[in-house]
Amino acid sequence: MIDITQKVEEALKDSGIKEGLLLCNAMHITASVFINDNESGLHADFLDWLEKMAPHEPVSSYRHNVGEDNADAHIKRQIFGREVVIAVTEGKLHFGPWERVFYGEFDGMRKKRVLIKIIGE
Amino acid sequence: MIDITQKVEEALKDSGIKEGLLLCNAMHITASVFINDNESGLHADFLDWLEKMAPHEPVSSYRHNVGEDNADAHIKRQIFGREVVIAVTEGKLHFGPWERVFYGEFDGMRKKRVLIKIIGE
Amino acid sequence: MIDITQKVEEALKDSGIKEGLLLCNAMHITASVFINDNESGLHADFLDWLEKMAPHEPVSSYRHNVGEDNADAHIKRQIFGREVVIAVTEGKLHFGPWERVFYGEFDGMRKKRVLIKIIGE
Repeated sequence: MIDITQKVEEALKDSGIKEGLLLCNAMHITASVFINDNESGLHADFLDWLEKMAPHEPVSSYRHNVGEDNADAHIKRQIFGREVVIAVTEGKLHFGPWERVFYGEFDGMRKKRVLIKIIGE
Repeated sequence: MIDITQKVEEALKDSGIKEGLLLCNAMHITASVFINDNESGLHADFLDWLEKMAPHEPVSSYRHNVGEDNADAHIKRQIFGREVVIAVTEGKLHFGPWERVFYGEFDGMRKKRVLIKIIGE
Repeated sequence: MIDITQKVEEALKDSGIKEGLLLCNAMHITASVFINDNESGLHADFLDWLEKMAPHEPVSSYRHNVGEDNADAHIKRQIFGREVVIAVTEGKLHFGPWERVFYGEFDGMRKKRVLIKIIGE
């Protein structure tokens, strides 16, 4: 789980948009973009909990796993969601206290790709 | 779980919008619109897993089920979410590889209704 | 779980926007804004089910709980989500039958704060 808040802020700054909405979504279907606290203990809890909810093993317990072995990663992404939509106010991400944006990949060492789209004026 | 990607693409084309955001949400509170892979084994895994997380039976174990029997469907929808927001770029849904839009109804044979709203220019 | 639909409708009316998108998100990372049915039995089922999925006790089972005791609340919020995006049509929230907006706080008596951002014309 990687903190991408600064990259999102840079994209917003580059856009010049002052008031609007910003969409940030994972481009991979075994990954999530989500907002929560930047605390390493909590992220470990998130990963442990997701593994308990949708265990990777036994791989053969999932029907998706024919030639693949990542059905659990698709389920984990469904729990944590694909995207966040963030308000943009006075040119900044309009956050409450402690809100940070994270990318979580649940299928190992895949290439990570995020889409950021901003509309407004 | 029904692939509605083509219907969403048609709505986008009809709108004439080239750059913006597209919202697609279920209009029923026991249903989800979500984005994932179009693979029937995976969809079977999704349904099995949701049933394990929030079993339909015993119906009497839920307090909502007074005259109704679909509390589990409301919970399943909460896990999978109500809506997706998709970036529109050059007149197209701006998707990563394998992203497809699905409608999932968790309460049997209900009428399915989706709302698509697009803003941009 | 508090029904905030009327407050959202008031914010929309004040904005004067007739066509667009409305974002409503929790500003706290142990809370969710979500859309479902306004039925107290169902809300009790939601809370029971969330507690079963991510129990508060034993507090020591979570690595986040050093000086805090709310790791479970962060997880519950991840399941139920942070935000909703609602279509605005003819100056109104464009809802299906029974859709209502709720604020759910999973960490006790915290101050509740919601952000509403509306774009359109």
